[in-house]
Amino acid sequence: MYLHPPDPDLAERLRSVSRRWGGDFEVLGIEDWRGLIRTFDGTVVHLTMYGMPLDRVAARIRSSARVLLVIGGAKVPFEIYERADYNVAVGAQPHSEVAAVALALDRLVGPVAPRRFSGGSVRIRPSARGKRVEERGSRV
Amino acid sequence: MYLHPPDPDLAERLRSVSRRWGGDFEVLGIEDWRGLIRTFDGTVVHLTMYGMPLDRVAARIRSSARVLLVIGGAKVPFEIYERADYNVAVGAQPHSEVAAVALALDRLVGPVAPRRFSGGSVRIRPSARGKRVEERGSRV
Repeated sequence: MYLHPPDPDLAERLRSVSRRWGGDFEVLGIEDWRGLIRTFDGTVVHLTMYGMPLDRVAARIRSSARVLLVIGGAKVPFEIYERADYNVAVGAQPHSEVAAVALALDRLVGPVAPRRFSGGSVRIRPSARGKRVEERGSRV
Repeated sequence: MYLHPPDPDLAERLRSVSRRWGGDFEVLGIEDWRGLIRTFDGTVVHLTMYGMPLDRVAARIRSSARVLLVIGGAKVPFEIYERADYNVAVGAQPHSEVAAVALALDRLVGPVAPRRFSGGSVRIRPSARGKRVEERGSRV
């Protein structure tokens, strides 16, 4: 994930989650978001409540080899609407950007479901009633 | 939505979103969350990364006439795990509660997609590139 403005503390917190839980999720702080979206070699998808329904374009986006999802805050510069290959909506009313990312990943990469990530030192064992966590060390 | 602890300012902000955008979403502050989940007449579904994969129980939950989704913060009292009819996970790693709600609504009520809500004074017209908002008054 590229993050603007950069936030080293947040990046480090997420890195430590990856170390503990596995997977290779990374946060990279960037200053020049304009340069990134201008030169990105792939499909730029901007999530916005003003866009076209995601389900109508999801199949086309899925056929791209590389996708950059763009999620803005309260005031999104208009050039992002112009540069984006797709402006897409998961909802046409005000809604959480986090919810939009979750649903977009579900439709474009997913389906999102509990899964194991490689590496890490702990794993959850799904449980109907309670918390079961497996420590790597405890199985040696 | 029941909210504990109550937050009248937040409730009012969300009410004003509903007035403007339509729909009948409501926030109700409650003190006695224990009483609510103990006496709820329907299926109680607790979203937790420790639970069973949602997709495995979604069909059963969908057959319930009434569902109460429970989403806790950082420290969830164990009695919620015990009272819940289902403890379900949308992810088995730390993740956003907001993302969990979005995906749970998608699987249990959805699919989530841009849709029009009744009432309200403004609507978005989906657009490939830009922002088109229709004011109710402007069509009279």
